[in-house]
Amino acid sequence: MSTLAKTMSKFRLAVIQLQVTAVKADNLSRARRLVNQAAAQGSQMVLLPECFNSPYGTSFFSSYGERIPGESTQVLSEAAKENKVYVVGGSIPEEDGGKLYNSCTVFGPDGEMILKHRKIHLFDIDVPGKIRFQESETLSPGSSLSMFETPFCKVGVGICYDMRFAELAQIYSRKGCQLLVYPGAFNMTTGPAHWELLQRGRALDNQVYVATASPARDETASYVAWGHSTVVNPWGEVISKAGAEEDVIYADIDLQYLADIRQQIPITAQRRHDLYTVTAAQEESS
Amino acid sequence: MSTLAKTMSKFRLAVIQLQVTAVKADNLSRARRLVNQAAAQGSQMVLLPECFNSPYGTSFFSSYGERIPGESTQVLSEAAKENKVYVVGGSIPEEDGGKLYNSCTVFGPDGEMILKHRKIHLFDIDVPGKIRFQESETLSPGSSLSMFETPFCKVGVGICYDMRFAELAQIYSRKGCQLLVYPGAFNMTTGPAHWELLQRGRALDNQVYVATASPARDETASYVAWGHSTVVNPWGEVISKAGAEEDVIYADIDLQYLADIRQQIPITAQRRHDLYTVTAAQEESS
Repeated sequence: MSTLAKTMSKFRLAVIQLQVTAVKADNLSRARRLVNQAAAQGSQMVLLPECFNSPYGTSFFSSYGERIPGESTQVLSEAAKENKVYVVGGSIPEEDGGKLYNSCTVFGPDGEMILKHRKIHLFDIDVPGKIRFQESETLSPGSSLSMFETPFCKVGVGICYDMRFAELAQIYSRKGCQLLVYPGAFNMTTGPAHWELLQRGRALDNQVYVATASPARDETASYVAWGHSTVVNPWGEVISKAGAEEDVIYADIDLQYLADIRQQIPITAQRRHDLYTVTAAQEESS
Repeated sequence: MSTLAKTMSKFRLAVIQLQVTAVKADNLSRARRLVNQAAAQGSQMVLLPECFNSPYGTSFFSSYGERIPGESTQVLSEAAKENKVYVVGGSIPEEDGGKLYNSCTVFGPDGEMILKHRKIHLFDIDVPGKIRFQESETLSPGSSLSMFETPFCKVGVGICYDMRFAELAQIYSRKGCQLLVYPGAFNMTTGPAHWELLQRGRALDNQVYVATASPARDETASYVAWGHSTVVNPWGEVISKAGAEEDVIYADIDLQYLADIRQQIPITAQRRHDLYTVTAAQEESS
């Protein structure tokens, strides 16, 4: 392997578990400061949490919503360009044509926006006595799968509840993604039960890296996020994990290790395409 | 709900973690005795482990192999009929037309064979310094998905390595299975790393019950099975789990609970069929 290829086979990912408050300007400035901090630690890609500019809740989405490009994405663009890193900008409530979406924007090291993913699967659940939430009361769903290329690897993007749908991860992986990122805000019921399990399952089943970024836990919020942003390797092991508080965690994404795992347990080559298929119904957005 | 429907919405599953030895007759008689024991405890379905009549290893498959019907399946049929239970007969090396298969047979409470599943995905892995195994050196793969109906629910069958392939579980679930059973013999490398994670992932992603049956651990064997036969509920929780030794574990499969979970987190209805599909390339065997 050439030195260049070796260099490219490993990169540092930072995950920012941001303390999100009701003051948008504070959220933006703290996000920017933490991207700077992550870059100073050698990160080449930085992941922010779902709804990083706004408290999470159907009553907030409209008032914190923005067009894209707008104030929040401008901050992301500048943070990416200033630090020459990829910024996967968690998500913000996006306003477009009278509708609201839960949207993740991705910026390249030159500050250009290279992807926008609108949450495909809206978070509508009702666990009696535990948690009821209906994103669809105010949000509209996206309708595109979303991947982007980097010099390191291809990356697939989902937002929170999107992670529950295995098909999305399967298609991303079949199309060459080696890292899946899910900004997400699980809660105090589904968090302890499913947050880590889902990530480890997606990683193991597809032999990819999986990273999640949650807001930090705020016990005073109407919706209390679980926290515990995590990075899982293709063997299904947690390699980096935050607690409940604001934090930046790091993981070295090693694509040679990923290749080794796929050689050792070669499920990619062993799939029985004569018996089943997972297919995307359309081309991805870009 | 009528009394009958209520009765049918719950049933007891037993999982036999058999100590498999080199003496086939002993394996068969012990299996039979433990099926009797499980039935006496009120079980309506009994699951045996992969390769329950033979040590697990490519050097054994030929000498322990049998035609179906044969000596081992005769024992399963009689055990089912005598106890009026469903017996999911783990697997045996099956000889047919000069080829060997790793095959699971299922018997109804009348002793009739209602299903034969030949392991679809052969266990060919090579983790340097840990575990190398190549089932394909001696076995041929099956080419059919395998489900069976009971008065309680529809059941999908896979064998061991089949569990690594999410598509199989997805198709079984989409076709109405509410319980997936995987006789399996993970080892001391993949067991601690992946055995429970795979089961919990399949259960959570598809909101089904998942049960696995392993041989008991035998440290003197050429292939040391992990043990830890397990039952997982549709919330992704382990509800019953064996240690390493021979044991019979029990779980009450509650289809009303499964329905409740699917209502609370309605991913089945929320899937985006306009964006992706998982499809079977052929009809199932029966």
